[in-house]
Amino acid sequence: MLITLPSASTEAECDALRERLDAMGLQTRALCAPGRQTLLCYGDPQAVKRASLLPFAPGTTVTPIPQPYVLCTRQAAPGRAVIIPGPTPVVVGGREIVLAAGPCSVEGLPMLRATAAAVGQAGAAMLRGGAFKPRTSPYAFSGLGEEALEMLGEVRRETGLAVVTEVMDARQIEAMIPHVDVFQVGARNMQNFSLLAELGRIRRPVLLKRGASATVEELLLSAEHIVSRGNDAVILCERGVRAHETLTRNTLDIGAVAALKKETHLPVFVDPSHAAGRADLVPALALAAVAAGCDGLIIEVHPSPADALSDGDQSLTPEAFAALVDQLAPVAAAVGRSLATQVAQPVARVA
Amino acid sequence: MLITLPSASTEAECDALRERLDAMGLQTRALCAPGRQTLLCYGDPQAVKRASLLPFAPGTTVTPIPQPYVLCTRQAAPGRAVIIPGPTPVVVGGREIVLAAGPCSVEGLPMLRATAAAVGQAGAAMLRGGAFKPRTSPYAFSGLGEEALEMLGEVRRETGLAVVTEVMDARQIEAMIPHVDVFQVGARNMQNFSLLAELGRIRRPVLLKRGASATVEELLLSAEHIVSRGNDAVILCERGVRAHETLTRNTLDIGAVAALKKETHLPVFVDPSHAAGRADLVPALALAAVAAGCDGLIIEVHPSPADALSDGDQSLTPEAFAALVDQLAPVAAAVGRSLATQVAQPVARVA
Amino acid sequence: MLITLPSASTEAECDALRERLDAMGLQTRALCAPGRQTLLCYGDPQAVKRASLLPFAPGTTVTPIPQPYVLCTRQAAPGRAVIIPGPTPVVVGGREIVLAAGPCSVEGLPMLRATAAAVGQAGAAMLRGGAFKPRTSPYAFSGLGEEALEMLGEVRRETGLAVVTEVMDARQIEAMIPHVDVFQVGARNMQNFSLLAELGRIRRPVLLKRGASATVEELLLSAEHIVSRGNDAVILCERGVRAHETLTRNTLDIGAVAALKKETHLPVFVDPSHAAGRADLVPALALAAVAAGCDGLIIEVHPSPADALSDGDQSLTPEAFAALVDQLAPVAAAVGRSLATQVAQPVARVA
Amino acid sequence: MLITLPSASTEAECDALRERLDAMGLQTRALCAPGRQTLLCYGDPQAVKRASLLPFAPGTTVTPIPQPYVLCTRQAAPGRAVIIPGPTPVVVGGREIVLAAGPCSVEGLPMLRATAAAVGQAGAAMLRGGAFKPRTSPYAFSGLGEEALEMLGEVRRETGLAVVTEVMDARQIEAMIPHVDVFQVGARNMQNFSLLAELGRIRRPVLLKRGASATVEELLLSAEHIVSRGNDAVILCERGVRAHETLTRNTLDIGAVAALKKETHLPVFVDPSHAAGRADLVPALALAAVAAGCDGLIIEVHPSPADALSDGDQSLTPEAFAALVDQLAPVAAAVGRSLATQVAQPVARVA
Repeated sequence: MLITLPSASTEAECDALRERLDAMGLQTRALCAPGRQTLLCYGDPQAVKRASLLPFAPGTTVTPIPQPYVLCTRQAAPGRAVIIPGPTPVVVGGREIVLAAGPCSVEGLPMLRATAAAVGQAGAAMLRGGAFKPRTSPYAFSGLGEEALEMLGEVRRETGLAVVTEVMDARQIEAMIPHVDVFQVGARNMQNFSLLAELGRIRRPVLLKRGASATVEELLLSAEHIVSRGNDAVILCERGVRAHETLTRNTLDIGAVAALKKETHLPVFVDPSHAAGRADLVPALALAAVAAGCDGLIIEVHPSPADALSDGDQSLTPEAFAALVDQLAPVAAAVGRSLATQVAQPVARVA
Repeated sequence: MLITLPSASTEAECDALRERLDAMGLQTRALCAPGRQTLLCYGDPQAVKRASLLPFAPGTTVTPIPQPYVLCTRQAAPGRAVIIPGPTPVVVGGREIVLAAGPCSVEGLPMLRATAAAVGQAGAAMLRGGAFKPRTSPYAFSGLGEEALEMLGEVRRETGLAVVTEVMDARQIEAMIPHVDVFQVGARNMQNFSLLAELGRIRRPVLLKRGASATVEELLLSAEHIVSRGNDAVILCERGVRAHETLTRNTLDIGAVAALKKETHLPVFVDPSHAAGRADLVPALALAAVAAGCDGLIIEVHPSPADALSDGDQSLTPEAFAALVDQLAPVAAAVGRSLATQVAQPVARVA
Repeated sequence: MLITLPSASTEAECDALRERLDAMGLQTRALCAPGRQTLLCYGDPQAVKRASLLPFAPGTTVTPIPQPYVLCTRQAAPGRAVIIPGPTPVVVGGREIVLAAGPCSVEGLPMLRATAAAVGQAGAAMLRGGAFKPRTSPYAFSGLGEEALEMLGEVRRETGLAVVTEVMDARQIEAMIPHVDVFQVGARNMQNFSLLAELGRIRRPVLLKRGASATVEELLLSAEHIVSRGNDAVILCERGVRAHETLTRNTLDIGAVAALKKETHLPVFVDPSHAAGRADLVPALALAAVAAGCDGLIIEVHPSPADALSDGDQSLTPEAFAALVDQLAPVAAAVGRSLATQVAQPVARVA
Repeated sequence: MLITLPSASTEAECDALRERLDAMGLQTRALCAPGRQTLLCYGDPQAVKRASLLPFAPGTTVTPIPQPYVLCTRQAAPGRAVIIPGPTPVVVGGREIVLAAGPCSVEGLPMLRATAAAVGQAGAAMLRGGAFKPRTSPYAFSGLGEEALEMLGEVRRETGLAVVTEVMDARQIEAMIPHVDVFQVGARNMQNFSLLAELGRIRRPVLLKRGASATVEELLLSAEHIVSRGNDAVILCERGVRAHETLTRNTLDIGAVAALKKETHLPVFVDPSHAAGRADLVPALALAAVAAGCDGLIIEVHPSPADALSDGDQSLTPEAFAALVDQLAPVAAAVGRSLATQVAQPVARVA
């Protein structure tokens, strides 16, 4: 429920009420609302019911949660961006479009280092690379695990690139903290609510990918699972949905990007690599995503796609990635944005 | 089957063979292939079988049709564009991006005239407007029919805009010929093969919309139904597929646009209005479509969307359309294209 | 709109009103409603508006159409079945479950005759067989056309089996009338509204297949297109929808069968052959359909599936069909139904 | 890879090879193959490569894994059933069809006890009830957690019914072990590979639900994730996929049930409640599932559906469930099966 205090309420009164609700086993979040204080209060339905009957101060209004998500609406935090502290801070959701690039899987230190250097040079602000890989088949390569985390940490220090990598299990979080700037939740785990709850309790940005058949509303509700636990730094990511087309691996839902920009204050990334499933279509999808208003792209780049242990078909070479960045810049400018990458100074970062 | 004649064959020999195949009840099409003559031959399977046993000239090769479509492949006609003769000729599929705009339904002459003037002024080269409207419900407004055709013809003469309107039934073609430059096949009729066959026999461009759950291959096969009957002037149109999202009416398959540009020489339009289903998302989808490489856009514009008899929610006002054109031009330039509309001289056309 | 006359109205008053509405260019249909007379009135929206302002008799109520379809609701005609006059009348939608079987395409008289004899012997009351075949590829066998109609007519006379075959184009209807008992509309033409309108004007039952991505509501609205033109004899047919599974050709929507039985009085057939796309799964789907409450099945049977010119993979042999009928009978009994086929006397019918 | 030893190999030779592969960090599973010994060997691709170059005994063949799944194929274990030890053992996958029933969520001990008594009396062999509930919204009731586990354990002892409940997180397993007979993996966690791996290491049956847009192959690969870790007792569950229909919550893929029975030896359950999403359609779907060959049903039953904290719309009353069991029995008999429930003796079990 939403509890809106009378406009004359003091912060102390608000805190007192929150303590009382806490004591009843409920969770509360204060909402930004100019001039008035509103509490979002939720938890066990019986406790919510009991709390709704408390003797509130006169002028207090108590209403049901008005739409499926509250904290992720555009109204909840207009204009807010996500800041990735990282080795070099990166602002996501502002005027600049942020590029994350790197291999599907971390396959070893030399290939990771080479890729990171190349994508950083070309303009990426973030390095992607899988350590724990969810694989449809139990017999497929599933990542180098903690060994890969160490490599990501090392290359992070060397290049100054922020690291984004996938977390599959709450028990991996602790080992990831020293090496990882952004915790990615994969499409298959978008509704792994245990994992989302844990990520709501950490102080690191989360990149939440849309499930292959999830609606925009379901994506926002999954984000709300994180935000309602206290972690506001959620970046959404459209990576294609499962429709009927077979020439592409997934169907990039460009309309969802546009709809998300209307619905929520959270930044929106696009993953053209998983959407296309084939390298030759990645540029067109990346250009379309920028034109539609995305705040960033996450792109698979491999020094030798034909030898990749996973997702080689959809990986760009470093050269193709650099060429794509050159194509993206004028489209970003045409829609009043710029690439964050244009100011990247990889050498300076290392120092 | 494909029959490839020896490289030394004369045109007369080729013609003689075609006549013989015709006499067996088969259909033939000559394919462009530098240095060699190849015939695409099809029809009743028994007759094809008999024909494959003919005593061909030595050096002739006979092979099965190598992929689902032949005439619509990129190889079949590299670089070819579709020319809409129209009151002012329009080239579709070249460097310039063509805009078609107008009301969902023709509701009367004054509204059509006003819309046409506005969209022409803003840069559209084509006027869209429904005369025969397929409607899910039998009780919904289904268009003004032949009366609307007359109005389209009149406004066409006045403005010089080429007219594109939907044909639902082969029996409508004759009445449409005097007023219509491009025959649109709606998504629901994409596999109405009787209608496609008839359109293959006329000498007017066809705008073929993709069915709501059709694959790209099925769309190209439907185009092949038209082209194999002799009408090469087919423009494809992506208008969104039926997936799981509910915030948009359909899911614009931007990857299909990119894939089509690789697969076929036929020009590709995008209909952002039916994809979005809501006016506020139309600009983002239109920009994305241009960035992804489309050759044209078909957009619903109504002088007073709230009063429209159909599709009001997704119609732009003339002002919003003009603003969109201003946004589209720099994106087109950023991908090495320009809007055909920038040279439009509506007044000169009338003369 | 719906116009409900005062309960004391005479039939003459009702007729007078209908004439007046007709004269305004509107279409009317009288609805069954015990004790009261209600007219469904529709057509050009301006005319409907004008008609709504007529000086009706006191006590008349005028309301908008209350739900997307009216004539196809369960309430509109509780308990009504469709009667196929045929050489031997067949009742569809009663206690008995009706089987239609035969080849995908009519490939010649001997194979049609053999199949018809076998399926009739096994218990089918109807013979299916395609004369005009919609084919995704223009190069695929598209049926023997009018020649096939003659063969169907001949076998119909010989066996007494009612004939169901697909109509693709309104211009085919006249040639079909002498030979065809049930006009099938294929999934691809479910929203070919010109064709539906024509079928609404004939006096033959229509088997309307659900489109591959159509909703139940859209199917019922397509049926309403036919019924509102005056032809009540519509049989619906679920044949699988396009979802994500690849082991079956389509995904049989068994829930739609159950939902249709709640929503409408129209009988519901199931086509397990197109749903499965492979013969080995056809029996399980047929059994499930009967258990879920369908009123009939339409099944592809070919004397030699491996040699079929179309859909061989999903065709049963005559022996497999007979074995399936033996499996269906106890399931039908278990849900309080029986197979119409158990009373079939093929020899007597010929006489 | 698959390593097939020469037919004369002894078990000791096979064990020696497995030890050697283990020492290389690889995982191995022996496959049933009459007359020959075959090892399934998998793990880090580099190690697999090295292992493939070992000096095997002459006559050994080494081949890649021949299809996406190995241990879940029908060939791998023909005729094997899953045995739920439970308070009273239940055999799943044999001639008898097993019913699991109970509330969506455990809401308290009295309602759970009443429901369990009723469904046991009616013939269910298993009690379902959610303790940890995955909920799309963070503000929805998410189950009573460990408190609910205690209640399930208590009712299990009282009634002798085996308990099936959902596990959302590997960290919940330990607390569940004393109270739970079958660990359910929900549709949203079908590809939570961390969780699947943990469930592969326990000695309890797993009920694995198909994801809302997963293919049958993906479902079997998820099962393979469990089985390849050593837990063979996996029961698959079809619960409807996300397609386009809106009258039902999901689209029950009855063809998948039939296809699974051909592909795998694992038993197949159907959940008609989540497929239908509305109680009035549950019986038709349950009947269809039995006719199509399922091995069991899992059905939501609530003593007062209108008051349920979750999924009330799709829950049957105990009376409706008992009536459904009466309908199911003859359909089961018609397809050569019987309900396991017909021998249930709830009173005897308690003793």
